[in-house]
Amino acid sequence: MVYTDIATRTYNHGWRLDPVVRSLLDTDFYKLLMLQLIWRRHADVQVTFGLINRTRTVRLAEVIEEAELRAQLDHARTVRFAKKELIWLAGNSFYGEARMFEPDFLAWLKDFQLPEYELRTVDGQFELRFAGPWTHTTMWEIPALSIINELRARAAMRDKGRFALDVLYARAKAKLWEKVERLRALPDLILSDFGTRRRHGFLWQRWCVEAVKEGLGGRFIGTSNVLLAMDGDLEAIGTNAHELPMVSAALAENDAALATAPYRVLDEWRHTYAGNLLIALPDAFGTTAFLRDAPDWVADWTGFRPDSAPPIAGGEQIMAWWRAHGRDPRTKLLIFSDGMDVDSIEQTYRHFDGRVRTSFGWGTNLTNDFRGCDPDGDAGLAPISLVCKVISANGRPAVKLSDNLEKATGEPAEIARYLRVFGNADRDAQPVTV
Amino acid sequence: MVYTDIATRTYNHGWRLDPVVRSLLDTDFYKLLMLQLIWRRHADVQVTFGLINRTRTVRLAEVIEEAELRAQLDHARTVRFAKKELIWLAGNSFYGEARMFEPDFLAWLKDFQLPEYELRTVDGQFELRFAGPWTHTTMWEIPALSIINELRARAAMRDKGRFALDVLYARAKAKLWEKVERLRALPDLILSDFGTRRRHGFLWQRWCVEAVKEGLGGRFIGTSNVLLAMDGDLEAIGTNAHELPMVSAALAENDAALATAPYRVLDEWRHTYAGNLLIALPDAFGTTAFLRDAPDWVADWTGFRPDSAPPIAGGEQIMAWWRAHGRDPRTKLLIFSDGMDVDSIEQTYRHFDGRVRTSFGWGTNLTNDFRGCDPDGDAGLAPISLVCKVISANGRPAVKLSDNLEKATGEPAEIARYLRVFGNADRDAQPVTV
Repeated sequence: MVYTDIATRTYNHGWRLDPVVRSLLDTDFYKLLMLQLIWRRHADVQVTFGLINRTRTVRLAEVIEEAELRAQLDHARTVRFAKKELIWLAGNSFYGEARMFEPDFLAWLKDFQLPEYELRTVDGQFELRFAGPWTHTTMWEIPALSIINELRARAAMRDKGRFALDVLYARAKAKLWEKVERLRALPDLILSDFGTRRRHGFLWQRWCVEAVKEGLGGRFIGTSNVLLAMDGDLEAIGTNAHELPMVSAALAENDAALATAPYRVLDEWRHTYAGNLLIALPDAFGTTAFLRDAPDWVADWTGFRPDSAPPIAGGEQIMAWWRAHGRDPRTKLLIFSDGMDVDSIEQTYRHFDGRVRTSFGWGTNLTNDFRGCDPDGDAGLAPISLVCKVISANGRPAVKLSDNLEKATGEPAEIARYLRVFGNADRDAQPVTV
Repeated sequence: MVYTDIATRTYNHGWRLDPVVRSLLDTDFYKLLMLQLIWRRHADVQVTFGLINRTRTVRLAEVIEEAELRAQLDHARTVRFAKKELIWLAGNSFYGEARMFEPDFLAWLKDFQLPEYELRTVDGQFELRFAGPWTHTTMWEIPALSIINELRARAAMRDKGRFALDVLYARAKAKLWEKVERLRALPDLILSDFGTRRRHGFLWQRWCVEAVKEGLGGRFIGTSNVLLAMDGDLEAIGTNAHELPMVSAALAENDAALATAPYRVLDEWRHTYAGNLLIALPDAFGTTAFLRDAPDWVADWTGFRPDSAPPIAGGEQIMAWWRAHGRDPRTKLLIFSDGMDVDSIEQTYRHFDGRVRTSFGWGTNLTNDFRGCDPDGDAGLAPISLVCKVISANGRPAVKLSDNLEKATGEPAEIARYLRVFGNADRDAQPVTV
């Protein structure tokens, strides 16, 4: 006799909307750290973020209905920080430090709401923009990405039977566990989940985080997802992102100010945070230029997160720079988080083992690797390279050059200007898959 | 907010016993076909069945508590045929034939109860016997085996965390689906589930049956499990087993009667059933002897189920015999069910394709293949070779010779006598793993 819980079934089948974003903590920790800095120092700056789908072959607007996307974005705008979430932000220690967030900042968060969005469909793609105060638009990056990625996954699964779904998730679980077992062979691995924005879905990310926690024990140091960190008593992981140097650069009044913009924002950062939060992104306008012109105090920072150079070459370049500045790389930290998967984690770990501290932020390939898992073929669930980037600050165009020209964003004339100011040394074009 | 259904949780955690056997239809279909014949023709025969664990290295009584086994056996004895089950047996067609079971037989089943058992623990193994009227003891074979196999699996899983269980089942599902995808490449495959007795558990067997049904469509013709056949609107598959010739042989008064015993029982069978149920097991006392001495009418039967010879050699031997008797093998059926898995199914299918009709009964390797799936290692869940065989009939010892000496059962002196009567031609010793 099969027992059906009619109440549960009615509830499950009666959903008007299954919200992707149910908490404003369902975002990356670095957004909150950056937000506090932005709120304190740049509350007057207007920044526009925009969605960029680098995987042009996937015509998102033909996969996801615009109305469905609007419903999710509208729902996210109704979400507020819950009282217990703000209490946790106030009372929890982050990176070993209590009271990371100031009381007046938390008081301001209390009424925070995601701002309005502009959405239209152009040639099979969504043109999605967030214009307004930087203090608000910055917070759209992660929910916008995770909403679109999850809606795409849901679309790919919509017509599957219960059984195909069962096989799909069974395979994906088995696949992830194979990866975990391989990573177990790396005794001093330091790994964290960076997969919120590209995840298959919230529940799947939660499963993946639990799996990695179970499998790697203390080698898994936490998650960038603040909600999962809170709910799972994990460390919240993250520091800062390209939007800081990008906005700083966009606001520069002339080429000379542009050249020093990346360091101005790091200077603000080091006067706001300390210790393990002193991690610099070197590649916004090219790592070679960044290191060449960096003030000596940058070498005092805990480490770097090379985010677009090949991991080994990029790491070696930074280690050489530390040595040239009289610093011992063995006391320094390199965080690798650019499309990593088990192969590249193993290679990078083994290459640097004992020569520099390393840490890995595992993103898309942790939380959205269904390749080979779908009985109906891969197309709908293969991850795409979707980002939400600063387009302009106070009306001035923003640019990212990156170490990989495939990751560059901005208007061509401005890109040319930035290349003139920062140079084009050691920049390469690598395919971007995730 | 995690919603916990307190009623469900209380119910789930409050189980006194989680019964393995909850229906008398949770058995193999051939038991019911044989039972009807036994009930009609041999109601006065007393038969003792006994458990044989061929995998001696697994000390079952050190894995399963005797009290736990008793509780399950006792529970199985409380189960009766439900009214709807008898109605279904009466109203359903089997092998295309309506009214397979006679009304007076079904009326007799109404009060059927599994008879008493004798259980003791000897040197780390269970000595489990069922003595009494053949009409009752025969029905213990499948529940006894599925209870012990499931209790063993439960013991192996008892100390696993929720997460390890999740990975375990995810891997097993992914593994089965790989097999299904390989079998899909065989366009004219005819396959059925024969895995009740050796299953990991009832719910897992049900999942496996659903998987194969989903993946193979019409090439999956049904299941030997009568309950799953009823619940899933599948064909119930099966004909007869070694116990028929074994009891017939044990009851033979002298060597001459022994030599013809295997055909006497087939003669009874063909006067009870017809068509696709006319499938003979040739190997109880050796296929070579069986074919050498078989009356010509055996060549009129639909086919054979070679159950201990290597599939290709055994099939070829039977085909040669059909040809020698002027029958065209292409009109005949060979059913392979001895420890088959995808490799041997593929090889056997390809070998015979177009030359004889084939059908595969997939057992242990369908419903209990967790090899490589357990994060904690394989030992506890690797299938064992557990059988429940006729030991004696009316107090006379029973023997099975088989084509594989490793599968022979009986007392040494009787085995020697049977070898004298039937000969020892073409008999081999192959390791028995499942």
